[in-house]
Formats: sequence, structure tokens, C-alpha cells
Amino acid sequence: MDWPKGVDGLSYGGDYNPEQWPEDVWGDDVLLMREAGVNLVTVGVFAWARLEPREGEYDFGWLDRVLDKLHAGGIGVDLATPTASPPPWFTLAHPDALNTRPDGVRQVHGSRDTYDVCAPAYREASLRIAAKLAERYAGHPALAMWHVHNEYGSATYSEHAERAFRVWLQERYETLEALNEAWWGAFWSQHYSEWDQVLAPRATQYLHNPAHELDYKRFTSDAMLDHYRAQRDVLRAANAEIPITTNFVFGQWVPVDHWQWAGEVDLVAFDSYPSAPDERAEQQSALHADLSRSWAGGGDWLLMEQAAATIHSKDGAIAKAPGRMARHSMIHISRGSKGAMFFQWRAGRGGAEQWHSALLPHAGRHTRMFREVAEFGNTLPGIAHTVESPVESTVAILWSPESWWATSGPHLPAPVDYLENVAQIHRVLRDRGVVADFVAPEGDLSKYTTVIAPTTYVLSKAAAENLRWFTAGGGRLVASYLTGAVDEHCQVWLDGYLGGLTDLFGVRVTEHLPQPAGELRALWNFGAAERFCELVELRGAQCVTQYATGNVIENQPAVTVNPVGQGEAWYVSCKLVDEAWDRLFEELKLTGPGGRGVDVVDRGRWRFILNHTEQETQVGNVIVPAGSWAVDER
Amino acid sequence: MDWPKGVDGLSYGGDYNPEQWPEDVWGDDVLLMREAGVNLVTVGVFAWARLEPREGEYDFGWLDRVLDKLHAGGIGVDLATPTASPPPWFTLAHPDALNTRPDGVRQVHGSRDTYDVCAPAYREASLRIAAKLAERYAGHPALAMWHVHNEYGSATYSEHAERAFRVWLQERYETLEALNEAWWGAFWSQHYSEWDQVLAPRATQYLHNPAHELDYKRFTSDAMLDHYRAQRDVLRAANAEIPITTNFVFGQWVPVDHWQWAGEVDLVAFDSYPSAPDERAEQQSALHADLSRSWAGGGDWLLMEQAAATIHSKDGAIAKAPGRMARHSMIHISRGSKGAMFFQWRAGRGGAEQWHSALLPHAGRHTRMFREVAEFGNTLPGIAHTVESPVESTVAILWSPESWWATSGPHLPAPVDYLENVAQIHRVLRDRGVVADFVAPEGDLSKYTTVIAPTTYVLSKAAAENLRWFTAGGGRLVASYLTGAVDEHCQVWLDGYLGGLTDLFGVRVTEHLPQPAGELRALWNFGAAERFCELVELRGAQCVTQYATGNVIENQPAVTVNPVGQGEAWYVSCKLVDEAWDRLFEELKLTGPGGRGVDVVDRGRWRFILNHTEQETQVGNVIVPAGSWAVDER
Amino acid sequence: MDWPKGVDGLSYGGDYNPEQWPEDVWGDDVLLMREAGVNLVTVGVFAWARLEPREGEYDFGWLDRVLDKLHAGGIGVDLATPTASPPPWFTLAHPDALNTRPDGVRQVHGSRDTYDVCAPAYREASLRIAAKLAERYAGHPALAMWHVHNEYGSATYSEHAERAFRVWLQERYETLEALNEAWWGAFWSQHYSEWDQVLAPRATQYLHNPAHELDYKRFTSDAMLDHYRAQRDVLRAANAEIPITTNFVFGQWVPVDHWQWAGEVDLVAFDSYPSAPDERAEQQSALHADLSRSWAGGGDWLLMEQAAATIHSKDGAIAKAPGRMARHSMIHISRGSKGAMFFQWRAGRGGAEQWHSALLPHAGRHTRMFREVAEFGNTLPGIAHTVESPVESTVAILWSPESWWATSGPHLPAPVDYLENVAQIHRVLRDRGVVADFVAPEGDLSKYTTVIAPTTYVLSKAAAENLRWFTAGGGRLVASYLTGAVDEHCQVWLDGYLGGLTDLFGVRVTEHLPQPAGELRALWNFGAAERFCELVELRGAQCVTQYATGNVIENQPAVTVNPVGQGEAWYVSCKLVDEAWDRLFEELKLTGPGGRGVDVVDRGRWRFILNHTEQETQVGNVIVPAGSWAVDER
Repeated sequence: MDWPKGVDGLSYGGDYNPEQWPEDVWGDDVLLMREAGVNLVTVGVFAWARLEPREGEYDFGWLDRVLDKLHAGGIGVDLATPTASPPPWFTLAHPDALNTRPDGVRQVHGSRDTYDVCAPAYREASLRIAAKLAERYAGHPALAMWHVHNEYGSATYSEHAERAFRVWLQERYETLEALNEAWWGAFWSQHYSEWDQVLAPRATQYLHNPAHELDYKRFTSDAMLDHYRAQRDVLRAANAEIPITTNFVFGQWVPVDHWQWAGEVDLVAFDSYPSAPDERAEQQSALHADLSRSWAGGGDWLLMEQAAATIHSKDGAIAKAPGRMARHSMIHISRGSKGAMFFQWRAGRGGAEQWHSALLPHAGRHTRMFREVAEFGNTLPGIAHTVESPVESTVAILWSPESWWATSGPHLPAPVDYLENVAQIHRVLRDRGVVADFVAPEGDLSKYTTVIAPTTYVLSKAAAENLRWFTAGGGRLVASYLTGAVDEHCQVWLDGYLGGLTDLFGVRVTEHLPQPAGELRALWNFGAAERFCELVELRGAQCVTQYATGNVIENQPAVTVNPVGQGEAWYVSCKLVDEAWDRLFEELKLTGPGGRGVDVVDRGRWRFILNHTEQETQVGNVIVPAGSWAVDER
Repeated sequence: MDWPKGVDGLSYGGDYNPEQWPEDVWGDDVLLMREAGVNLVTVGVFAWARLEPREGEYDFGWLDRVLDKLHAGGIGVDLATPTASPPPWFTLAHPDALNTRPDGVRQVHGSRDTYDVCAPAYREASLRIAAKLAERYAGHPALAMWHVHNEYGSATYSEHAERAFRVWLQERYETLEALNEAWWGAFWSQHYSEWDQVLAPRATQYLHNPAHELDYKRFTSDAMLDHYRAQRDVLRAANAEIPITTNFVFGQWVPVDHWQWAGEVDLVAFDSYPSAPDERAEQQSALHADLSRSWAGGGDWLLMEQAAATIHSKDGAIAKAPGRMARHSMIHISRGSKGAMFFQWRAGRGGAEQWHSALLPHAGRHTRMFREVAEFGNTLPGIAHTVESPVESTVAILWSPESWWATSGPHLPAPVDYLENVAQIHRVLRDRGVVADFVAPEGDLSKYTTVIAPTTYVLSKAAAENLRWFTAGGGRLVASYLTGAVDEHCQVWLDGYLGGLTDLFGVRVTEHLPQPAGELRALWNFGAAERFCELVELRGAQCVTQYATGNVIENQPAVTVNPVGQGEAWYVSCKLVDEAWDRLFEELKLTGPGGRGVDVVDRGRWRFILNHTEQETQVGNVIVPAGSWAVDER
Repeated sequence: MDWPKGVDGLSYGGDYNPEQWPEDVWGDDVLLMREAGVNLVTVGVFAWARLEPREGEYDFGWLDRVLDKLHAGGIGVDLATPTASPPPWFTLAHPDALNTRPDGVRQVHGSRDTYDVCAPAYREASLRIAAKLAERYAGHPALAMWHVHNEYGSATYSEHAERAFRVWLQERYETLEALNEAWWGAFWSQHYSEWDQVLAPRATQYLHNPAHELDYKRFTSDAMLDHYRAQRDVLRAANAEIPITTNFVFGQWVPVDHWQWAGEVDLVAFDSYPSAPDERAEQQSALHADLSRSWAGGGDWLLMEQAAATIHSKDGAIAKAPGRMARHSMIHISRGSKGAMFFQWRAGRGGAEQWHSALLPHAGRHTRMFREVAEFGNTLPGIAHTVESPVESTVAILWSPESWWATSGPHLPAPVDYLENVAQIHRVLRDRGVVADFVAPEGDLSKYTTVIAPTTYVLSKAAAENLRWFTAGGGRLVASYLTGAVDEHCQVWLDGYLGGLTDLFGVRVTEHLPQPAGELRALWNFGAAERFCELVELRGAQCVTQYATGNVIENQPAVTVNPVGQGEAWYVSCKLVDEAWDRLFEELKLTGPGGRGVDVVDRGRWRFILNHTEQETQVGNVIVPAGSWAVDER
């Protein structure tokens, strides 16, 4: 297939919600899109109430005209099923199809994302509207791609969900005995004697069972995926030529295992919203891009949404400086994205996202912002030739959504910020010029020489074997504290943790030694650790460095390495500061062109140079001005 | 009418709850009130359960005796309807008459303010008890004023409220089409196809629709006002001579539009509770007083409640220094209040407000506090001659409750603290000796030479025309960032914001540029801006100052002025620091007697001088000791 | 009786949950327990679902085998009734037996502590399983003690609870008139005309009535105690020889009056979990120990739970340094504990407390931790001879749970941290080498020469008389600010507060003067006060020191003393800083051996010396290395 179908080179555009505007605006829209170099727009994401204003009553006329107009203008359409926001008539008729909070409060409509993927009425209504769209538009010449739903993510704790959860558990465990054992039900008298006793992890008196919670997140991911799949199959049946996707959203509140989902979409689509105003925005963008590329596994992927003008941090929005929109887009494109899309084309007059920045601002065409948008859009065809060249890497970072989920609770040996630990590795490598892939704990490691596994708290037996096999085959494995603390059922790996790989690492972890927050523990000639250390017993490994201070740990091994066949297994028994990781990567000779503030990424024979700094930079023969970027042939 | 009826000069007193005390205390109360100069007390605010101990069973004997005793002592009575706290028997019989939280939890009795103004049973019971009181006391010689309810403010999200909300919407919009358009229903699939689909903005998955939320606040204000009006009409019918009011409470959680309410009361009554221990307490008091006077619109107003001895800040209570109670009272009296009232007369032994300070403390008459209370009370007759003289001002600050409400959510271009922005203008003017009025966006501006409109985010077409008319008539208008960002339906004013007044200001705002919190952006020779800047295009205005630094904004206009006929329209495109406003007001020659820490306020030919500092001060010929005050003839 | 029965000397061990492990682990457990010196384990705390997998279906076989095996190994059993965690089958069948939050949300199972002691079905099921255990094990030779339930503490606001609360109130007040008067029902219209109108203090609009809240806490304590008593009586009936207890947990969320409960258990059992990583952990441990000893009132008590390896602070866990586990244990033993118990024996593989540290860590026997555990356990027999010697003290600190509860709300004169105020006295005394008892406000004061009563906000008439009697008998009483502010119904003591003891103290408090947070108020030659001061009028007392600064309070009495017969009544009218209390205790000649960081505690003729510092110390002839401890004969 062609991604998106009929769109040559790099996609550029965004969500387009013409139903919000009078019809006479649409003509302008197409003209301005052409002016800005837009070639793909996502239509209909939140249009359900307009498409089906009453149950079974459809109005497609306006959408026909929109698609015709776009097609006439040469702009491809990524047509959405509108299921992420059911209309008021639906939720009023089916209150049980609204999602329910853990405390039993059922949400009402009046926002978006108010749905319960486990509710039969919602499933039916979703498939009905998807079928109608498929029937009418599957052959429309403007149709470049299907966009199912929007940012799957509404968890629910309803009775429907509980029922479905029990079915899911029965498939997974077969017997209650197996469930009780997996969940360690003997603790706190949680032994179930009938399937009906198993509930969602709803509001309770004290801590939840971690295995119960982890399975509920897995179940939620699967239940949403099932809803996606059902729609996808309806669309596919109507026209097998049209690629189908759904846009991923990223955050700890989103119980979605993107490794699994990536296998079900025709291209990975990612909504990238960095959350910090400073250089962390670029770090996060690069992380998002590398995750997306890795989920796509060599397949296509696309930056599906970003904000043109602002970064939303916890302190509210911050304006992006000129050129930063383009550089963020190029972070994605250089790392493999097939384009740069935005939410949204035209800034809305009303609604909850009226202040979400857009390609075409409220003040219209004659604005600094639109000029920048158009200038960048018209630059992209000049680099369209790079689009088929892949990004290659020999270094991978383990990305374990289950470890992320399982470390989110309050019951841990000490607080763990899994995402930060992963982001730290990614950031330090990026600052050293290394472009890394991500890989699933049970994923294919064969193309990598080095795999770094930070805090992979949950390690299944299969994942452990995968790591063993990688190392045995000559790979270099670097794992950090709390690796393999528990297995896939959140049960502790006894006798040394490490997912049972004590022989592989040549060490046994005998004790967790959380240190007071804010205190550093120096390592000999190796920077420092903070907050978390482990007591490690050498069982064959060599000590790379030791703790220089600290109760119990003083002079104990901090970083170790164990030769395994052709490979090596490194173990970092603590939370290192950035400088210590940098020191370790120096040791491992992980380095590349570029460095802090300057991305140098190769996509086949094309070299992308992004200068995020306020100084001009030179890479090879290419001089890149401050805040600018360039593509050169290697 | 006479305010309050039969009370000469300035009112002094407070809430009096004799039902809490044995009858033999009442005699003491009257004696001590006389000793303290008290001439007005508010009786019966929370006495419903005592007046009607069971449904339809009344006990007025005790109240008869209280009123007789007060009358015999020469003390006027502000008699309250007790509807702010329905008795347990009522709410147990009518659980649907309790207010409901957005998450559906219905409150229970056991506190106060547990009522749902939309519940029919509550409306009926309220009118019944009001009628009983009217019947019995409308002709009582002690009756000086009626006090309906207490601090209206309990919002509710019940089914009763939803039903009433739909009726309110039908009256406002007539058709669903109009509602859908006003609320920008096309976004997020919020198009309603039946009126019954419209709900209160209850707990939902993500952001609410801002137009929906704003209308719900308007509705709530109206629904409570309707409840007030119904009681008022009952009381009025019984004796047209007695003035009627209800005491206003001020805070963002109170969905009350005081501009509207002020038109329905015979005098504006305000409960003033500053919330900061330092000089902000005086700033807030002055703000409260100027708001009250402005709401009263030249009519009477009264400081109805304050705390004698303490300030309640977010860190708990702080004692007021000696004299501060008097100075706070005088802030109000100098700015037009017809007296100084308190909550409450005698400190309670029990109940949730047992530690709320009072005129007569727990330790009784022989206390420093009571001596101060009595001393101040006995001073007031000496300035009673000032009471009919008005406070006049030529400077007004726009006060837009809808802008306050609409900027309270998380969906803005960047966080806006509307109240602080208004308070900042008021504070800087006060420190320059200027006493300002407040005025509604659509209010009468004809008596002002200068109108300052900080962050008037919501600007209706009518308000925009009002400002245009004011400037055309020679007025000087100063508006700041985000002015007229949206109209009355929270829809963005396209093509330059500013409520469509781009021609009036001679500028177009083309972009919002929120800056990182905590970073200052210097203006040339004009102080600095923080957090929020806008990109402004000159369209005829002159640039007063420019940004000295900042991405995109460097050397762009920060403050502009546009001559319009005899008038001028100033635009401040950013959030200025205090010093910058001071600089601007210097430019505008807004200055008066007094200054920071010293209030000099003229009420007709009487000049009030309040010295809040720790040094003696001299104004004209008058020397005012530290922490003291004086009234002089000009 | 013998505590625990059949265990000689000091108890050492912890919770043992063999039902979590395959049976072949049990043999190892017993061997390792013996190696570690363990002689007592608590079994079955959370085993209900295993003991009664379906209603009325029992499985005791495994428990038989566990007890036999332990007995064979010479290890005593503290056998628990498992009622703190009802099985899923029970709560699914009886959803009304789950506890309900104040907002009406009923908890679900899936954690622990999900029960409603007021639900008849839960009461019945609890007694049934207790009876089964009693029947089967009351004569088992391993049985050393019964352990009813676990950490009573789940408050509930259900209809069952409301019904029981009304019965409790009827017993306490007899008439509604008395209730209305006690609760000051005339305020806010809270007068009840039928008993059915009285609710639990559930979610409401604004502040609750403090008397209502205080009574609800008392009721909750009583309701849980009643549940305990019912089980205890069943166990007692089966074998009168076996001591019975329940383990106390300590925290403001636990509405338990330990003074009352202590009278119902055969020995006081306390779970000690310090919450700060630094020396406050030792301070808290000593406070816990002295409270436990005092509750036991000369009877036996036991440190029933602690964590071996970690301290859980609000920032997560922190590792204990080597030796700290032993020192914490010795803090308790030196102060009277009959041993040192832990949660739990073997670290769990799964469940919410899988990371709770244990005597036997996940990594097993060959660990630093287990070596330390075994070393300490094998040391204990060497000091077993000290176990019958009592700790004696002549100084007592008043501990008023009702003052703790009543000062937890937002309605106070200013925020009060009652626990910190008590802990402060305890800490300053401990740093001066003084081991203090605690005593209830109405408790027996006859054996003390000095009683210190910090912030005893709630003071009943009986407690006031108790203090009067103590002072008249020659005792030295030291009370601090807010003493006797209210009586047992939360009603203010009029005319000078102080529980009506103005004559005793020779002062009248006329005004509360809360000061801004963070500002110190110097006292002449006496350190300083912070946050809270009172205005005090001398009525016979002598002034010990005055405020050197501060509005109103400058040169007013800060600390006073009044000679009363042979005794003295000291009054501290403010919140003193540590240094000022130290100064005051210097005045009172309260001093002892040891000091900051070095505990010296005498238990009969045995002297315990605990060195918590990082330097060697010498006490008498005994040299104690850093971080170590010693027991010597005096």
C-alpha cells in the first residue's frame, strides 16, 4: 500500500473540522491549504452528531461536498470514524454506555471521550456509523486513509467492563486456581471462589493488589483494541486498498500497549505533545519519534498531531519561538515520520479547544504564524526524496509498558519514575549523537549490538530468555536497578531478583537500599547515584565501579559487567545521574555525530541536521544557522 | 426610604443569635450593645429550626421577646428569613431539596447552605416561613430592615436544576439551533437534537464546553436571584416601608452576578472577609468597598459582615492588631458604607463557627477586644454627619463577573487570574491616591473621564459598542491583554480579537505569546511584563513602548494609544508588573492625595484620612498617628 | 497469666503467613526461625478466604499442620482471627457489610480492611469464624496468644452505622433536648426534632458541627471496640488461660481511643511505623513505646509490628542503616516492651505488601539482613532477665485523643498540630534524659510529681477536677495554650477558657492572638514563641517571662506560675519553640542521664543505653560504640 494512499512524499496538514464553519469558509480553506503546502487533512473526527443527528437519521450531504471540494483541490483525506465522541442523543438513550470512574461515578456527556468500549450499545452504534461511512466513502477518490476513533484512552470500571474483564481473565487463566495463584490471592484474603467475585479495581479501603491492577490495564488495552479492530474490519471489507490507522496518545493514564496495537494498524500514527517549555520539549519529541518508529517496526509511521504554536506545560501554555514548530516537525521526519500533521487546520471559535493552536490562527492568513506554516509546508517537497529511506540503529532501549504501569502505584520498594528512567537513557544517548531504537522486552533483538534496559521492573520468563539469548549471541546488555524485580504476574523473582538472570549478570541483588531523596551517593570515578541503590553480591561479574559512600553500600559494587560468550551483561545497581550514564556510554563507546542541542540523524544516505541552539553550528561541511535545520547527502 | 429604617447616622452592630443563649443572657446583651454603641442587629439568620421545629409547627414566642427587648433598648432589627439553613426535618422529608455536587453526590444536612433553589419543596417551604415572619413582624416597631437568606451561593447540579436550566436556555435561545450555534456544538459532537439532552456541566471525562459552563453560572445566578425575589415580594407585600436586602458574599465559587442582583435589593449589603494577613487585607477591604458602592450605583450600601478580631488566610487565622478593626471599618465607611456591621455580636460557645471572632468575646466584657469595640462604636455618632455625602470619582475600572467566571477554567491560552488583574489596577491606583469606581461592561460610563478594562476576556457586542461610544465621547479607555478575546457565548472574536474593536484601538492582535512563568520581559523605559504577551500589529495607533526582549516580540509594540475623536484608546498587550502600571498611570496623570498605606477619601466635603502605616502621617493640616484615622472638613 | 503464654523472656518474631507458600517451604521456615531466635509468630491474620473458602465451608487442615510444625519447633503461636479482611464471597453476598465513605461511595473488596463493624452480617460472620477457630485451637499446645482482627481502623458512614450511632447517642444523651443542647444545635439551624434526623457527618456543603464530629469519632471507637469485645468473649469462653489482644495502629485517621481499648485487652500490642528517615524515627519510636507502656498502665505490652529494613516516609521508603533495626527494637524493649515483633517473617512474592520489608528477605537466608536479624534475635535471651522489671517515671505528659480528634478540623482559632505539640514535649524531655509516662486527662495522676499538658483543647469537667486535685496534692502542672478551650461537647469554656481553671492557674485568657506563620515572637530570656499566642490577664499568678515583641502581647505574660497549696500550676500561653521548652524544663529541674541521641532508660535495676549517634559514648562506666546499645546493672 501507499501511505497515505495517493499522497506523494511527505504528508503535511492536520485535523480539519469544516462542520464548525459556514460552508462559504470551505473554499477559502482549500485555497489556503494549497498556499500552505497542505496535502492531507483528517476529517470527521468529532462529527458524529452532525453525521447522525438522531438515531438512524443520517446527513452526509455536507461531508460529500467537503470531500469533493478537497479532492478538487488536490488534498487527500484521512477520514475518521467519529466514535470518540458519541452524540448526546446516544448517551442519553444509553447511559450504561458511558464510562464509569473507579468510585462508581458515571461520566455524562458534555465533553469528549465519554464512552465505554465494553458497553454493547456503544459497540453496535460504533460499527453502524463506521459501516455507513465505509459504504459511502470507501471508493471516494479523495480518500487517502481511514482514521478510526481518536486517541483511545477512556478507561472504565463499569459493570460491562467487569463482565468483560472476567471473560478476559477466564481466557488468560482458564481456572480460578490459576488466577488465585497468579494474583497471590492468599495475601489479604483475596482468594476467589467464584468468577463473579472478581471485580474491577474500584475504590477500596487501601492498596490494590498489583497483579490485579496490571491485568486490568492489560484488559483495558485489549478491550479498546478489540473495539478498534471491529471498526477496522468493517472499513477494510469496504475497500482493501485504503490504509487504516488510529492515532496513539501517550501518557501514563492511557492503558494502551502500543507494541500490540502497532501490529493492528497499517501505519503507526502518533500525537506528540511535549509538556515542558525548555529543551525537554525537543527531548520528548525525539523520544516520541523513536518510539513511534520502533512500534512501527520498520513499517510506516506518521506524526499525526502536534500543536503549531504552543507547548502545554503544567503551568499552562508557552509560545513556541519562531522555527521551533518546523524543528519539532523535522525531529519526527528525520527519525522516520512520513510527514508532519497538526491539530488543527483552522483555530476554532468555540468549544473546549478554541485556544488549541492551529495552522491557520484566529487572526487569519495575514499573521506571522501562518507565514511560518506556509513557508515550512512549501519546503517539504524539497526533501520528499528522503521519505523511503529508513533510519537504522544498532542500539536499542527496552520499552516495557507493563513496567511503566506496574511502577505507577504507591506500593513499590521506593518511588520509580519509569518514563523518566527511559527518557534519561534516550536523552544521554541523544546528547552523545546516538539515535536509538526502542524494543519490546520480548521483541526481536537480533539487529542490535547493544540493548539498554532501564528499570525493567516487570520481566516475564520469556523476556528474560530473550535477553539471555541476545547476550549469548554476542550482544551487549545493560540493565539497571529493579530489573526483573517481578514477573508478569507481579510476583517477585526470588533469590536475587533480576528476572532470574543472576547467572547472566553474574550478580545477585540481595537487598534494596532506598536512599533519602536529594542525597547523592558518589561512585568511584563514575559520577553518582541518587535515591535508589541495591546491595549486590558478585557471582562471577567484574566490578566496574563501587559506591564511595553510603551505609552498607560503601565499597560495594555499583556497576558490574559479566562476559557471557561473545556478549556482555552489564548491571547498574542504582539510579545514576545523567553524568554517570554518559560516563558509562563513553566506556561502551556509544557515540555519534551531533550532540547536545544538535540532532544529526541519518535516513539512508540523507543526513538531517537540526540545530536547536542559539548558535550557528557546522556538521561536516554543512553550516546550519541557529534554530534552523538542513538535509544533506552523506 | 430610610436605610435602615429608624437607624440614624451610621449603623453599628452585627448578627445576633439569641436563640443560642439562655434568655437571661439577653438582658445583658442589650445593655452591652448600648454600651458599645450598637444600634442595629441582624436576627434570625439561622433560626429556622427554632421558629418551625416541625413542619407547620411554629414557635415565635422567643423571637417576640427578643424583638421587644431590643426595641426597648433602642436597637433596630434587621430581621432575616432563615432559609439559608433548612432544618433537619425538612431535608429529611425532602432529600431532593438538597444540593447536588457535579459528581452526583447529594449533600446532607449537618452544616449550613444545604439547599437546592431549584427544588419545588424548598421554594415552597422558604416562602411559607417568609410569609409567617412577614405576617408577624412586618409592623413590629423594632423592624428596621429585612435580610433575606444569607450569602446566596450553593450551586447545584440536581435534576431539578437541570430541568430549570433547560427552561432558562429555552427562554434565552428559543431554538435548539440557536443553542447549538451559540455553544459551538459542532465541536466534539455536542450537537443537541432534543432539549432533554442538555445537562448541567456534571462530571465528565475531559474539558467542559466553556459556553455551556458560562451559561450554567448565569443560570445559577438567576435561579438564586429568583428565589430571593420570591421571598422579597412576600415581605414587601406585608409592609412596603421596610427596606429589603440580602448579604452578598464574594468569591469565585459564588456564581452571582452582583450587577444584576444590586438592582433587586433596596440596599447593597456586603460581607467583607479579607484573606491575607498583610497590607493586602486593606487592599482587599478597599476593593470590596469600591465594588459595593459601585454595585449600589449611587444608592445605599452597607458593610454587613466582617470579623472583629481575625483575618482568615489560607494558613488559618491571624489576629488583627489593635485599631485594625476600626480602620477596616473606616475603609468601608469612608468609601460610602452606611455603617460597619460584624459577624457576630456574641461569640458562640458551640457550632462550626465558635471561633469566628465577635464583638463580645468568649471572655466577656472585660477584655481588650470589647473595649476596642465599644470605643469605636462610640466614636461613630461623631461622624454621622458624613453619611449622606457621596463619594465621587472620575475613574472607573471595568468589573466583568463573566470574565471572571470564564477565565476560571483550564482551557485558556494561558492561565489568567482575572481578580488579581482587577485588584492590581485598583491597588496601584489606590497607592497613587486615586479612588476608583467599578462599572459593568455594559454600564453607564458617562460620568468618567477614564475607564480601565483589565483582561475583559468576555466582551459582548453591546459592551464593545459601549466602550466605542465612551471613547468617541471623549473618554480615555485603557484595556489590557485578552480584552474581548471572546464574545458572550465564549466564541472567539476573529480577525484580531479585541471584541472587534481593532479600529478603535488602532491595533490588531495577531497572536498570543504566553511566556514562561517567572521570566520578566522588559519594556523600553516602562518596567516589564510577565507571563503573557501578545503580538500586536499597528493599524493607526501610536506605540507608547515596545518589548525590549523576547522571541518574536522584541521591538514589537507593547503599549499603544490611538486617538479617537476627543478620546483615546490605550492598549496594553501584556500582563504588566505593578511598577509598569504605575508608570502608565503617571503618563495618564491619574493621581490624588494620600498614597501607599495612607487612604485619603473624600465623601462630599468630608475628608477621611486612614493611616495604615506604623508612622505618623500628615495630610493637609491634619496629623494622623500611626494606625489611626481622622475625618476632617475639606 | 503469662504473656504470651509459654514464651519465656522476650518475644521475637513476626507475622507469619504460611498460606502464601507451598507447604515444603514451611519446614525451612521453622528451621530459619530457630536460627534467628524467633519464639513467637502471628498466624492467620489474613487467612479468612483460606479458612472458609465458601460460606460455611471450612478448611483447617493446613493450619493444623502449620501449628503442629511450629509447636514441634518450639515456636509459640499468636493466632489471629482473620476478620480484618473478609473474603470476596462474603462481601459479594453482603455488599451492605462494606464500609462507606462520607460521600456515600461504598468500598469494594480487592484490598483489605473493607468491612463495616456496624453491619449485622459482618458481625455474625466474624463471630462464626472466631468461634470455629476457638473450638479447634483453644487447646492447641502451640497457642500462646489470641490476636483479634488487625489494626482496627476502618471508619464507615453507612446506614448501619447511622442507625447504631443514633442508638449510641440515645444512650449517651437520653433525650433529644440534651443532644441539641450538647451539640449547640441552635447554631445553623441544626436542631433535631426526631432521632431519625441525626446522620453521620457525611459530605455536606460547608463545615461540620465539631461536637457532632467528635461524637462520631467516639462512637466509631466504641463500635469497633464492641466488635472486638464480642470476638474476645467467644475466644475467652473457649479457654480462659489464653491471653487475648488486638494490635493497635496509630494515626489521626484511626478513630480509636486507646485508653479505653487498653482496658479490654490482656496486653497492649502496638504496631510502630515511624514515618521520617532522620532522628525523628527514633523520637517517634520512643513516643510509641512510652504511649504503649502508659496505655498498658503497668500491665504488659508488646511491640507487635515494625518493619525490619525500611522506614516509610511520605517520600517513599528509606533503608535503615545496619543496627538501626536492633536499636529501634531496643527503644521499645528498654521502655517496657516484652519483645520485638515484625511484619512479617518472610517477604511476600505478591500482593500489595510484597515490598514491605521482612525478617527473611526475598533473597533468602544468605543476606546481610537475615544475618542482622539472627544476630539480634540471638542476643535477646541474654537480656531476658530484664523483662519483669518495670520502667518508672515521675513525669507524665497528658495524652488526650479527643483533643487530637477535635483539633483536626479547619474551624479552629488557628491550626493546631496536637500530635506535634505532644511529641515536642516528649522529644525535649527525652533529649534531657527524662523518660516520661503518658496519662489520660481523667487518669490517675497520683504517682507523678510533674504533669505536662500540651494544648489539651478538650477538657471535660472531670478532667479539670482531676488536674485541680493533682495540683492541690502537691503536683506541678504545666499546661500550654488552648488548654481547656472547650469541654467534652466542644463547647467553649467561657470567661477565660482553661477548662474553668482560671483560679488554679491564676490567669484568665482573654483573647487568642494567632501570629503569622513563620514569624517568631521573642520571650524575655526564654527563647521564643511561634504562630499562636494568647492574651493573658494575671489573677494571682506570677509572671515567669513576657513577650518581648508583638502587637498587643508585648510585655504581656507569656509563661506564668501559680502556687497552689503544695503544688504549682504553670501556664504557657503560646506555642514555644523547642529551645524555650528546654529552658522551662531546666527551670523545673527535669533532667536525667543520657541526652540527645543517647537513650538511657532504667528498667528496675537494669540500665539500657542506646547510642543512636555516630560517635562512641560513655555512660557511667559503660562505653557504647556508635550505633550500638548495651544493658548494664545500675
